[in-house]
Amino acid sequence: MKNYITHDDWCIIEEGFHEANNEISESLMSLGNGRMGQRGNFEEHYSGKTLLGNYVAGVYFPDKTRVGWWKNGYPNYFAKVLNACNWVGIDVKIGEETLDLNKCLIQQFTRTLNMKEGTLDRKVTLTLPGGGAIQLHSTRFCSMADDRGAAIRYSITLLDFDEIVTITPYLDGNIRNRDSNYEETFWNELHRETSFSEGHLILETKPNPYGVEQFQVATGMRFNIRINDLATDYQSLPIRNEKYVGGAVTLDLRAGQEMTLYKYAVNLAATDGDTDKLLESAKTYLDRITGKGFSQMLAEHQAAWARKWEFNDIVIEGDKAAQQGIRFNIFHLQQTYTGEDETLNIGPKGFTGEKYGGSTYWDTEAYCIPFYLSTAESGVARNLLIYRYKHLQKAIENAQKLGFTGGAALYPMVTMNGEECHNEWEITFEEIHRNGAIAFAIYDYTRYTGDESYVSQYGIEVLIAISRFWKQRVNWSTQKGKYVMLGVTGPNEYENNVNNNWYTNYIAVWTLKYTLEVINNLWEKDSARLNDVIFKTNFDLNGEMGDWRHIIDHMYFPYDDAKRVFLQQQGFLDKHLMTVEDITPERPINQNWSWDRILRSCFIKQADVLQGIYLFEEDFQQDEIRRNFDFYEPMTVHESSLSPCVHAILAAGLGLKEKAYEMYLRTARLDLDDYNNDTEDGLHITSMAGTWMSVVKGFAGQRVRQGLLSLKPYLPEQWSRYSFRIGFRGSLLSVEVTQNTVEVHNISQQDLTLMVGDERIFVAGGASETVSL
Amino acid sequence: MKNYITHDDWCIIEEGFHEANNEISESLMSLGNGRMGQRGNFEEHYSGKTLLGNYVAGVYFPDKTRVGWWKNGYPNYFAKVLNACNWVGIDVKIGEETLDLNKCLIQQFTRTLNMKEGTLDRKVTLTLPGGGAIQLHSTRFCSMADDRGAAIRYSITLLDFDEIVTITPYLDGNIRNRDSNYEETFWNELHRETSFSEGHLILETKPNPYGVEQFQVATGMRFNIRINDLATDYQSLPIRNEKYVGGAVTLDLRAGQEMTLYKYAVNLAATDGDTDKLLESAKTYLDRITGKGFSQMLAEHQAAWARKWEFNDIVIEGDKAAQQGIRFNIFHLQQTYTGEDETLNIGPKGFTGEKYGGSTYWDTEAYCIPFYLSTAESGVARNLLIYRYKHLQKAIENAQKLGFTGGAALYPMVTMNGEECHNEWEITFEEIHRNGAIAFAIYDYTRYTGDESYVSQYGIEVLIAISRFWKQRVNWSTQKGKYVMLGVTGPNEYENNVNNNWYTNYIAVWTLKYTLEVINNLWEKDSARLNDVIFKTNFDLNGEMGDWRHIIDHMYFPYDDAKRVFLQQQGFLDKHLMTVEDITPERPINQNWSWDRILRSCFIKQADVLQGIYLFEEDFQQDEIRRNFDFYEPMTVHESSLSPCVHAILAAGLGLKEKAYEMYLRTARLDLDDYNNDTEDGLHITSMAGTWMSVVKGFAGQRVRQGLLSLKPYLPEQWSRYSFRIGFRGSLLSVEVTQNTVEVHNISQQDLTLMVGDERIFVAGGASETVSL
Repeated sequence: MKNYITHDDWCIIEEGFHEANNEISESLMSLGNGRMGQRGNFEEHYSGKTLLGNYVAGVYFPDKTRVGWWKNGYPNYFAKVLNACNWVGIDVKIGEETLDLNKCLIQQFTRTLNMKEGTLDRKVTLTLPGGGAIQLHSTRFCSMADDRGAAIRYSITLLDFDEIVTITPYLDGNIRNRDSNYEETFWNELHRETSFSEGHLILETKPNPYGVEQFQVATGMRFNIRINDLATDYQSLPIRNEKYVGGAVTLDLRAGQEMTLYKYAVNLAATDGDTDKLLESAKTYLDRITGKGFSQMLAEHQAAWARKWEFNDIVIEGDKAAQQGIRFNIFHLQQTYTGEDETLNIGPKGFTGEKYGGSTYWDTEAYCIPFYLSTAESGVARNLLIYRYKHLQKAIENAQKLGFTGGAALYPMVTMNGEECHNEWEITFEEIHRNGAIAFAIYDYTRYTGDESYVSQYGIEVLIAISRFWKQRVNWSTQKGKYVMLGVTGPNEYENNVNNNWYTNYIAVWTLKYTLEVINNLWEKDSARLNDVIFKTNFDLNGEMGDWRHIIDHMYFPYDDAKRVFLQQQGFLDKHLMTVEDITPERPINQNWSWDRILRSCFIKQADVLQGIYLFEEDFQQDEIRRNFDFYEPMTVHESSLSPCVHAILAAGLGLKEKAYEMYLRTARLDLDDYNNDTEDGLHITSMAGTWMSVVKGFAGQRVRQGLLSLKPYLPEQWSRYSFRIGFRGSLLSVEVTQNTVEVHNISQQDLTLMVGDERIFVAGGASETVSL
Repeated sequence: MKNYITHDDWCIIEEGFHEANNEISESLMSLGNGRMGQRGNFEEHYSGKTLLGNYVAGVYFPDKTRVGWWKNGYPNYFAKVLNACNWVGIDVKIGEETLDLNKCLIQQFTRTLNMKEGTLDRKVTLTLPGGGAIQLHSTRFCSMADDRGAAIRYSITLLDFDEIVTITPYLDGNIRNRDSNYEETFWNELHRETSFSEGHLILETKPNPYGVEQFQVATGMRFNIRINDLATDYQSLPIRNEKYVGGAVTLDLRAGQEMTLYKYAVNLAATDGDTDKLLESAKTYLDRITGKGFSQMLAEHQAAWARKWEFNDIVIEGDKAAQQGIRFNIFHLQQTYTGEDETLNIGPKGFTGEKYGGSTYWDTEAYCIPFYLSTAESGVARNLLIYRYKHLQKAIENAQKLGFTGGAALYPMVTMNGEECHNEWEITFEEIHRNGAIAFAIYDYTRYTGDESYVSQYGIEVLIAISRFWKQRVNWSTQKGKYVMLGVTGPNEYENNVNNNWYTNYIAVWTLKYTLEVINNLWEKDSARLNDVIFKTNFDLNGEMGDWRHIIDHMYFPYDDAKRVFLQQQGFLDKHLMTVEDITPERPINQNWSWDRILRSCFIKQADVLQGIYLFEEDFQQDEIRRNFDFYEPMTVHESSLSPCVHAILAAGLGLKEKAYEMYLRTARLDLDDYNNDTEDGLHITSMAGTWMSVVKGFAGQRVRQGLLSLKPYLPEQWSRYSFRIGFRGSLLSVEVTQNTVEVHNISQQDLTLMVGDERIFVAGGASETVSL
């Protein structure tokens, strides 16, 4: 755990340069706009600890699957998130000396991520190794208004000496992934050109043997230089090397003069290989953004961020760390996915690192969709559902590869394009609960939006295919006289290949029930559409539905009669049961224990049973929830970043306010305080949605019940007040919670009736209602 | 399954060139002498399908561990069996044309592995692409008498034309492993030299970051040429390239003249890097073997093989395929391991291929030791035990890495030097039954040889360390009121991470019992030695022994009361039980089913419970054995080459003669007939010991009971007679079985009393006794 970031309402501030934490700061201060993203790397050369990262949404490389021993059914490739062309680079030479903060005496250093405006700012005062003080000030952003564009303002002032300064903005495609083998590179150059104050590179991902499309990315830059904010004449010497273009500008700077470089960049990705067209598009795009200029671009970008915050800000009073933490999470979620492109999704590291391959995990359905449902137009969540709908055929093929038949679908654990690209049998083949989460998201969307068109137009096909999978994945145990599900891994990845994982069995049965309900509804409301679906999916209405009902009625759920708790899996009670407190100095166990020991222990990465109770809360009595919470919480080590939020929400619902707050704290500043000692690899983007849920679904008790938005808020005692904004079916609310009141302000024009506690209240458009707590 | 090898008592014959099967033939016709080995590759260039393989015992490369996601406790490296310098190569140019069988019209082709004499012979008549018939005849062997030496006699006759012929014997270190990544090579050159008719290379394995020693291998050759068996004058043009030395000899050959090249080679391995000394040793060695010349070398080699066959031949009459099969297995076992070097062991592919890393698996203890106990001097098996004794400290460190303490040892699943080098969690960390097999081998050795010195001098330390492991590896299940062992993989690798694997629990308890017995014996017989052991191992005599007794008395064994069978693991009966016949067209399932499906199915790679019953036969009643056999056999797919022999032995003991023979057939010609469609990768060396066991322990019912050799032979009805030779405590017997009699001939000078059936018989040295069946 680290604690070097200055607490602030709107900014992430590194005051004084923390060299040892530089890669952490780079992760924290990543910028993105849904199309591209960039770690908080310095523009100028830096020889110290740094992880360069430039990412373009949707671009990946199908790397060799690396395994000890091949197992039938493994995918051929692993979708590697690629470090792309470095467009932020600016080399600075002062006299004969290349500016490198690692070699200077740093007098003053502030790096600030301004989350309100989406900008990264750095102010440095330093003394060069050979003497001479200079000041450096850079500001950059990836435009939310022009999402292929970005801009940097980079100023150098020689404070106490005159010198020849050479400044070289460049584009560099000679980059590697840190996780690659044998110094491999993944990009080839297709085109390179420079002209005065301008440069272009078109890079293409290397060919692969798996039939995966190659990506071309055109990166362009244009720059100009001003002295003391006045236009100046300068020469630009073009530099062209393999996968590199730069323009070197040499200026004779006087002490006190501020030289400012404006660098505009564009990143355009394509897959059709038409280099000329791509180059032309990139130039046109550059024309447009340089036409606006830095100030206007920035203003439009700030305005776009203002609109986002309008929809989803959370204000916490009385706890600056909490305020900063929650905004940090909302900020990164918003810059990772904007919902504008249904082919994109939310990678676990977003644009902040290269670790983990692929872009889509079950995190999207279980964690991110609830966030976007409440904080963005419904089209954003819908696009995330459409993404899976478009991959249905590939999910069916994936299941076929494993031996399933008749249109059964198993969605991939990790994917870019619908194909599985993860290769550990215990996860790839066994962590099949993901199928359930994908089904649940359809229900969740429908429940939240009231929009039934998605499920009948698209979702029903996905539900049938997943139900077919569950049907084939269970088998009848003669011994138990029940259906069992053997060989699965639940969300708790600290158990592998278990039998009758309670959560997986539960969500499987739930899927079957929901699919039956959807079919029956459609039968009543639109039998023509149902007939189309039956025809399209070759559905045996009576036979398949009968089979599903039989499974629903005869599924085995492990349960302990003495403790009266659901068992995470069959045989769980054979373990040596301990609590997390027994092993405190050895945590995190995933860094201190062998895998063998972790697997055999009772300790839980994230608690399956509680995840199930969270999703299907209404199926359980309060005392039942409490018993299971009390049984599993003490054994849960929360070493999945997705874990604490679920416990926070359940604890809040059970009135365990202290526990709820403790859990909230673990998620809120997970990356900011580097809880898991891995922020340097990038941020835990998808779990950030869980933090938001801890507040809105936890402290504020947000649910949808009988089609109504329902809130049951309370104020954590550590705070003096909090408010959040959520949208619901066309209304936009600002909800403010104090110790004794909750004020619901309908800031949209659309009236809304909602539940606050047990009270049904009506809030007209533009009006406010206050309820006592 | 293939059937192109001519059935013959003593030879493996490929009549006519089977190009498509060339890699299979190369595997089958591999030669070795315990120190080095060579696949049956052609000497001359061949552009068709071929897997070049030259192996030097004990030499390996610590390759990068390749896994999807790292797990704590994984070893850093994977010990790759290295393809070493090619010493058999002879290039032949006829006129301007390089001789390449892939480009010629082959008129006649015979490749013969003579197992009696240990030679590989090839006779070819062919027409060159440009016309002209030639005859080629080569004979080679890796000397059993001079085990760093080998020799080749290689003749060419131009049948119907005169031509300039250039023959270039060479050494080539520019070789790769087929399984390597990215065209990697693993050898650097340290030294290269040539002189007239001589060449030397010293290669060194590339450096590695794991602190593993680098190996230097000196390969030398000397050659001479004769025409029509007469000395001739010739020039040798030295060729020196990176990692290559050759000597080109150009001769003007007349039609009908036979040109014969004698090539002598030496392979010397070292690790101390003293190149000069190594070179000198190699030259001295070459001097010695070339001093003998081809004929004498061959004669000594044949004599060494004759001595081996004297000890271990099995004669089968009435079934040539069976006769060939059993000798094939004995032959390869003998050339893989000679027992002369206690640092060596028996790799799963021996010197016949590069697949699988490492040299030592539990196969050695469970399969090979019983073979060598009966067919070689007792020192051979003892050296295999000493090998493990020397690795005890590393096994303790390996266990520590996983979290075990207090001198508990977990031997590696796969190793070269005592360090674990396998990296799949479900095997590396969970297939811990190997520890039991290592303990059992100590018992087995002592039981067979009657030599108690090993267990008291060495074995006891190994037993204590393994018992300590079992003690920590179990845990008390409050629910069961028993000890349980969670998260293991049994010998049946088609189940992973199961709880209470019956076999593992059984062998664990057996180890504890045996260790107690050994300690108690030593207490009585040599308490001073016991005190040394107690001091050395820091043994808490009462405490630890008490703990072990408690586990012995309270271990949980899964059992089904209705079926009255031991359950392979807890929960096994939840599976959908089928028999192998239900899935016949889909076999082998490891090639036709996804891993997911295999894991969930009831099908068994090799049957754990039966393996346990085989090892601990005397603990069970016949009807109990029969019930378990009848339950598990029909579900066993025998996709481990180690499986059928155990079933053969049990079936024979149960009087299920047809089943016993069926099982024998699956193992006897596994590689010869390419049953598993993988012989091209190399032979299944360790399972060959199982074939021998099928005959001697199966059909002949060989056991040791109360210190006496015991036989219960019968004649399979497919045979008219069989005989085998086994040694027992200084006596050497030839046992001949016909339908009605068994004749025991004591061909040693030492008298022996043994059991035949229920009869105790005395056979004086040199005498024979016949017993009716």
